Amino acid sequence: MTVRDLIDPAAAATAGEDMWKLMAELYPVCRSITGAGFRATLDVLARHVDLDVHEVPSGTRAFDWTVPREWNIADAYVENAAGERVIDFRRSNLHVMSYSVPVDARMPLSELRAHLHTLPEQPDWIPYRTSYYADNWGFCLSQRQLDALPDGEYHVVVDSVLGEGSLAWGECLVPGATTDGATTDGATTDGATTDEVLVSCHACHPSLCNDNLSGVVLATFLAKALAAASPRLSYRFLFIPGTIWSIVWLSRNEATLDRIKAGLVLACVGDPGHLTYKRSRRGDAEIDRAVASVLATRGAPYDVADFSPYGYDERQFCSPGFDLPVGCLNRTPHGQFPEYHTSADDLDLVRPEHLADSYGACLEVMRVLEENATFVNQNPKCEPQLGKRGLYGAVGGRSDTVQVQLAMLWVLNLSDGGHSLLDVAERSGLPFGVLADAAQALATAGLLVER
Amino acid sequence: MTVRDLIDPAAAATAGEDMWKLMAELYPVCRSITGAGFRATLDVLARHVDLDVHEVPSGTRAFDWTVPREWNIADAYVENAAGERVIDFRRSNLHVMSYSVPVDARMPLSELRAHLHTLPEQPDWIPYRTSYYADNWGFCLSQRQLDALPDGEYHVVVDSVLGEGSLAWGECLVPGATTDGATTDGATTDGATTDEVLVSCHACHPSLCNDNLSGVVLATFLAKALAAASPRLSYRFLFIPGTIWSIVWLSRNEATLDRIKAGLVLACVGDPGHLTYKRSRRGDAEIDRAVASVLATRGAPYDVADFSPYGYDERQFCSPGFDLPVGCLNRTPHGQFPEYHTSADDLDLVRPEHLADSYGACLEVMRVLEENATFVNQNPKCEPQLGKRGLYGAVGGRSDTVQVQLAMLWVLNLSDGGHSLLDVAERSGLPFGVLADAAQALATAGLLVER
Amino acid sequence: MTVRDLIDPAAAATAGEDMWKLMAELYPVCRSITGAGFRATLDVLARHVDLDVHEVPSGTRAFDWTVPREWNIADAYVENAAGERVIDFRRSNLHVMSYSVPVDARMPLSELRAHLHTLPEQPDWIPYRTSYYADNWGFCLSQRQLDALPDGEYHVVVDSVLGEGSLAWGECLVPGATTDGATTDGATTDGATTDEVLVSCHACHPSLCNDNLSGVVLATFLAKALAAASPRLSYRFLFIPGTIWSIVWLSRNEATLDRIKAGLVLACVGDPGHLTYKRSRRGDAEIDRAVASVLATRGAPYDVADFSPYGYDERQFCSPGFDLPVGCLNRTPHGQFPEYHTSADDLDLVRPEHLADSYGACLEVMRVLEENATFVNQNPKCEPQLGKRGLYGAVGGRSDTVQVQLAMLWVLNLSDGGHSLLDVAERSGLPFGVLADAAQALATAGLLVER
Repeated sequence: MTVRDLIDPAAAATAGEDMWKLMAELYPVCRSITGAGFRATLDVLARHVDLDVHEVPSGTRAFDWTVPREWNIADAYVENAAGERVIDFRRSNLHVMSYSVPVDARMPLSELRAHLHTLPEQPDWIPYRTSYYADNWGFCLSQRQLDALPDGEYHVVVDSVLGEGSLAWGECLVPGATTDGATTDGATTDGATTDEVLVSCHACHPSLCNDNLSGVVLATFLAKALAAASPRLSYRFLFIPGTIWSIVWLSRNEATLDRIKAGLVLACVGDPGHLTYKRSRRGDAEIDRAVASVLATRGAPYDVADFSPYGYDERQFCSPGFDLPVGCLNRTPHGQFPEYHTSADDLDLVRPEHLADSYGACLEVMRVLEENATFVNQNPKCEPQLGKRGLYGAVGGRSDTVQVQLAMLWVLNLSDGGHSLLDVAERSGLPFGVLADAAQALATAGLLVER
Repeated sequence: MTVRDLIDPAAAATAGEDMWKLMAELYPVCRSITGAGFRATLDVLARHVDLDVHEVPSGTRAFDWTVPREWNIADAYVENAAGERVIDFRRSNLHVMSYSVPVDARMPLSELRAHLHTLPEQPDWIPYRTSYYADNWGFCLSQRQLDALPDGEYHVVVDSVLGEGSLAWGECLVPGATTDGATTDGATTDGATTDEVLVSCHACHPSLCNDNLSGVVLATFLAKALAAASPRLSYRFLFIPGTIWSIVWLSRNEATLDRIKAGLVLACVGDPGHLTYKRSRRGDAEIDRAVASVLATRGAPYDVADFSPYGYDERQFCSPGFDLPVGCLNRTPHGQFPEYHTSADDLDLVRPEHLADSYGACLEVMRVLEENATFVNQNPKCEPQLGKRGLYGAVGGRSDTVQVQLAMLWVLNLSDGGHSLLDVAERSGLPFGVLADAAQALATAGLLVER
Repeated sequence: MTVRDLIDPAAAATAGEDMWKLMAELYPVCRSITGAGFRATLDVLARHVDLDVHEVPSGTRAFDWTVPREWNIADAYVENAAGERVIDFRRSNLHVMSYSVPVDARMPLSELRAHLHTLPEQPDWIPYRTSYYADNWGFCLSQRQLDALPDGEYHVVVDSVLGEGSLAWGECLVPGATTDGATTDGATTDGATTDEVLVSCHACHPSLCNDNLSGVVLATFLAKALAAASPRLSYRFLFIPGTIWSIVWLSRNEATLDRIKAGLVLACVGDPGHLTYKRSRRGDAEIDRAVASVLATRGAPYDVADFSPYGYDERQFCSPGFDLPVGCLNRTPHGQFPEYHTSADDLDLVRPEHLADSYGACLEVMRVLEENATFVNQNPKCEPQLGKRGLYGAVGGRSDTVQVQLAMLWVLNLSDGGHSLLDVAERSGLPFGVLADAAQALATAGLLVER
């Protein structure tokens, strides 16, 4: 089985359901950029894919950054005078600001307010707030909850630990046919390099689905599917805490980055919006062209945006010292859907069919990376007579017959040794898959030879 | 007289009328890719232009193709039990499928139906069908004719001959001023090459006007007009059966193809739609830029489309082994008008005024090819004082005075040795003809010298 | 104080009022391309800026041109039989055609009509007419005035002098920090060259405001402001009669033109229309990109048009022998507002707020020219941690905090040594000023070094 064989609507639909179920399993876990929740998440993923888990201690330097302390939390609440929990971490892990320092204090509501975060414009939603780099504590709650709190004395407890520890990330390598002893450390046993596709997702948010569990489960199921195929390229999946851990990863794999021929950061890939691709800093890398070609021929609305140095971990992969060919695939991008970073980014927002659609698109992109090649027409003077070779007949039973015939003519016409199949796709506007099928048929007939 | 002198609306209108009359004369002839009808057509054309007729025997190889058998037909009909011809080749040569094999048989309507072709969605029109490469026979008729046929026994006769023979094509060379002994065989007596413009039309359809008699008569009248002028370039007109004969022609003229500096395939040039140009495979060849510039400044709607490897004989001229700078000029392209390949593509669809418009546009394009040159401003520092040379006055009486003055300023400004007149036309948006006139006036005044 | 410090809305508003007042003072003067009116205008400007006035005698050759005779006028009128002035130069200097030769004659209205110019479609406006290069005389008047003239004998007087003299222009150099002994003659005392910005305006029209007093007062106040700052570049302001005097200036400064790194022709900069920039002939010179970037980020409608060899003195600066990077800034371009070259182009059409807006835009453009530089990110692998350096905090109090943070990320990301700040502005779509501020903050923090 090859990557092209993975492209199947029914299989994608099934994967969509399974991804949603995995997301539902991961949803209650209280994740942050460090700590037990993140490790628990990796444990669940390891049941699906062959996952290497790495840890580096707090204080480790990586370029301009330092690995922070590890944060763990057991409980957090605000109790009223009657001893009732009016804000309770056990009901939603969004109620406590991530990286809140320990606190056990009594204070009037007037004092407590400075530590309470709400969204007045969405009075039923709990916001998501963090304070990774400044010692602070806080609670997040809905505006309605806050409005219902009477004045008076409250008991505030954050039962957290913020101290030396380590940070973890998960990495899964699906080795390609050309792999020669590559390890997940980014080194190969014999120094040989192999072309790799990097797929990265941040897995550091608590109970939030579109940002970021959707990316986590999509990456997991892509890895699972590829492991069952025999890809030509290697695929390296990173399940990492955002920002700093891509920096740590880059600092530890600097020597072997040149093997990355393409990459995708996955986030917000389960909402009802259409697919949106943000180009790599290079703008015209093969991954940029591959995604644009796939999106343009899937028959659904889509957007392709230029690179900007704001967003997810592509900020680091595309920093000028690396300039890796890594783009970012979303449905609705961060900050552009109202549920973003609120309790409404939940299991209702992300649906199996949208996960399935993102999954199918990614596999189509991977097929381009796998199969893009440059062919040479062996009969370059005038068209060959396709009819006498049965090439028209061979495809006559298909509903897209005309498109297949056009595809053969396009591949023959542009296969002068200077155009790859992706070039042909861009110029013809035809789907890469149809062109790749046509090229295979023509090569089988001896009319085309790979350069 | 030069090509620019041929550009005249009144002369074009007259040519339009004459082209339509020639088309009416050619309309009844039953043409196919081989046979007597094709030769009869060439005989008519030879009364208008200096035509070389070539023949190659069936079985001749040309690249991947083989010249097929020759097809001739005397009569064809379907007779009912009463001996009445219910389908009759003598009424329309579209009634018989082209290349039908001989048949003389009696069969019930139920059996005959498999050989009958109609257009249910256009119940009054007879479709045009061929079967060049598979032994078969058939009749084409209107849906209403078919609906009127009662069940019963029919007598089917196709009195055709399909056998060894030869194929013919016509070629007309209008030699240019720079021609040095060129022959229509594509060889020159002394080995010198000369710049040529190739104009090709397919002449292999029976009673169909827009596709393809309009192209045939337009090519004929362009050749006739050019022969009366003194063009700088040579113009080679091909009247050929589609696809295979461009392949044969290319195979026999391979050694001298480098003399083709521009080319146009003409088809569907007489309908009421606006002009449409399909670029050559190169996309930015001089012919592509010349046609685009002419169409953009004629004051009428138009389309310019990118090359695609589907259409007319540009498919062969633009195959990767040749990649000739040959585009295709249509009004409404093939398949995009409902009358295409039906009996409704007749003398009513094609009108003299549309033929005249296509004719005028072609001559404007040829003027660009003739006169495009690069000049050098002899007074490049600041503008020259045009007034003291009477250059404003010289053109003061014209209604397009302002445009002429602008044209002089544009030509002077861009004539730094790096811009051709076509470059100036593209950047200024002014008509090439106005710029060429301005350049001539400036050169006469000594302000411009051809590089 | 540097150029960036000049950018201040309140200061621009004040300058707008002051420019309008200066324009009102200059409005009544009867200017032409030579003569006392032009010199009187320079005298007024010399009260505001350090102006060098140059004169060259009639008959001087400059490339293809010759300096014409000097024209001066004392009075002009048409008197009716009753001795009443029915057309009177003293009421509007537009009433006499510029460069009218002396005349003192009596003639019937029928004969006089050949010398009378009106605008029938704007019956209350007086047109502006000239006859620099053909001996002629004429009067301009409103259509209503003409309609009211009874038949009969009229006394026509033009009390003008057209003879040998000289032509004048004014030039103001604001020396830049890199200037090394430059003089306004375009020579430097020691042969060193320095980068210069050329700002040119024509000052040769009589009582017309938008074309051209608006350009004159804008150039004057830009020069005044820059003289009070300490610009890095030198700024050379030309107050010249149109066309011929730019030719004379170019002929006298040919040896030092390579010091001109950017230039702007200013005209029609006071009307209510939005800003319009016409690119230099090069099309992608720094000035072209700087103006486009500034206009695109000012939050107001604008147009950017390609170069054409018609318009103001950019025609000469951009002639192919020089091809200087000089564009043209207007609000509504010449000929595109109905008041153009009529008595309605007056003090009501040009308003202080529009002059102020043009002034502000020019200073923003000059800031780009001053500060555009290429930086090198000293921490190119992943983002630096801006938070720990207080760089976010440093700008936290500003209302455009998010834009400033984005600006820092863009500057860091593209500062690989191959992108200037203007490149960053174009790619990010952010205002140059915000990026330059960000670059300065990053450089101060040691994260960026100028290449």
